[in-house]
Amino acid sequence: MNDPKNRSDIPDIIIARLPRYLRVLNLLRESKKTTNSTELGEMLGYSAAQIRKDFSQFGEFGKQGTGYNIDFLIVKLQEILQVNRTWDVVLIGIGNLGKAVLNYRGFEKQGFFIRGAFDDDPAVKGQIIGNRPIQDLSNLESFIKEFDIRIAMIATPASEAQAVADLLVSYGIKAILTYASTILNLPADIHVEYSDPIVSLQHIAYYL
Amino acid sequence: MNDPKNRSDIPDIIIARLPRYLRVLNLLRESKKTTNSTELGEMLGYSAAQIRKDFSQFGEFGKQGTGYNIDFLIVKLQEILQVNRTWDVVLIGIGNLGKAVLNYRGFEKQGFFIRGAFDDDPAVKGQIIGNRPIQDLSNLESFIKEFDIRIAMIATPASEAQAVADLLVSYGIKAILTYASTILNLPADIHVEYSDPIVSLQHIAYYL
Repeated sequence: MNDPKNRSDIPDIIIARLPRYLRVLNLLRESKKTTNSTELGEMLGYSAAQIRKDFSQFGEFGKQGTGYNIDFLIVKLQEILQVNRTWDVVLIGIGNLGKAVLNYRGFEKQGFFIRGAFDDDPAVKGQIIGNRPIQDLSNLESFIKEFDIRIAMIATPASEAQAVADLLVSYGIKAILTYASTILNLPADIHVEYSDPIVSLQHIAYYL
Repeated sequence: MNDPKNRSDIPDIIIARLPRYLRVLNLLRESKKTTNSTELGEMLGYSAAQIRKDFSQFGEFGKQGTGYNIDFLIVKLQEILQVNRTWDVVLIGIGNLGKAVLNYRGFEKQGFFIRGAFDDDPAVKGQIIGNRPIQDLSNLESFIKEFDIRIAMIATPASEAQAVADLLVSYGIKAILTYASTILNLPADIHVEYSDPIVSLQHIAYYL
């Protein structure tokens, strides 16, 4: 049995796969109680060996031969990812994409609550979208501090994303999911994820 | 020097990183002519060794010590990914997210043209959004065949995604980017990418 490693010793490339395991496990849970690395591998396109190696980073998740208990594995992965709780999120940029994000119920189902939505555009400011009022950016600092918010989503045009990200970091935000198609230059302790459909399309084009 | 491998021998996990290299290289190209694995690694959060190992799968991209010529590397990666050409795409599902996709200019800039947009909802059918008329699903088969389209994007509700994907595959689609939060069960030769912001949020939550 491997000892679990310290959080900071686990390569990010492994952490990035954990939410994908969770998604598949939540689907499997509807029809069965146990799974194994072969089944997970087939659903995700990873090798069974890779999956066993990933899980071994965190200690013992199942016994050789009997597979994994799905509910147990979900609980463990949620604990590791710190998603066994809810998180408040702010969203900056309420264009077409921002509106779609506000109207999407999937974030709440997974514990991410868009607590505040912000945009400087007079055309949307003050509107209510997906039950949230669109606030002026001048409210952003006090809002983040009052609700102790650490996660932000950016859905502004690419040209504004860096300035918005700099503001967010100066207000105490620690993690950013950006939809803007530009790379953000931020301090090393700020964690940024890019949601970029072009990356996905270029990936699948390889196989055509 | 390593010989380049056959396309089918390259692990998908490496292919998945190539569009990310491309994105960073397109950014670097604006200010310089050469780069190296250390710089790319810092921008992407991968190790320099990983990057050199990835590139070595495809033959020789640069000389030890002199780094990589950015323009050359972009051309090579575009060739490998088959994105040194344009691709026509169909989009199914024109809700909030589908509308945002239609109004987003970034796809065209990278060579992916949304040639047709489809939805069965009478509320959107016949509308013009982002310069495209929203067509009935009954036109989908003839449209895909007439324009020889191989890539589709799905932006329907999760409950409809599998049925739509089955239709698309039966009409000849080979690659799907889906925004719907459900896992698609499709033949092994169909390549699916999931654009799922929950995966990204759960990933960054690890670091909070």
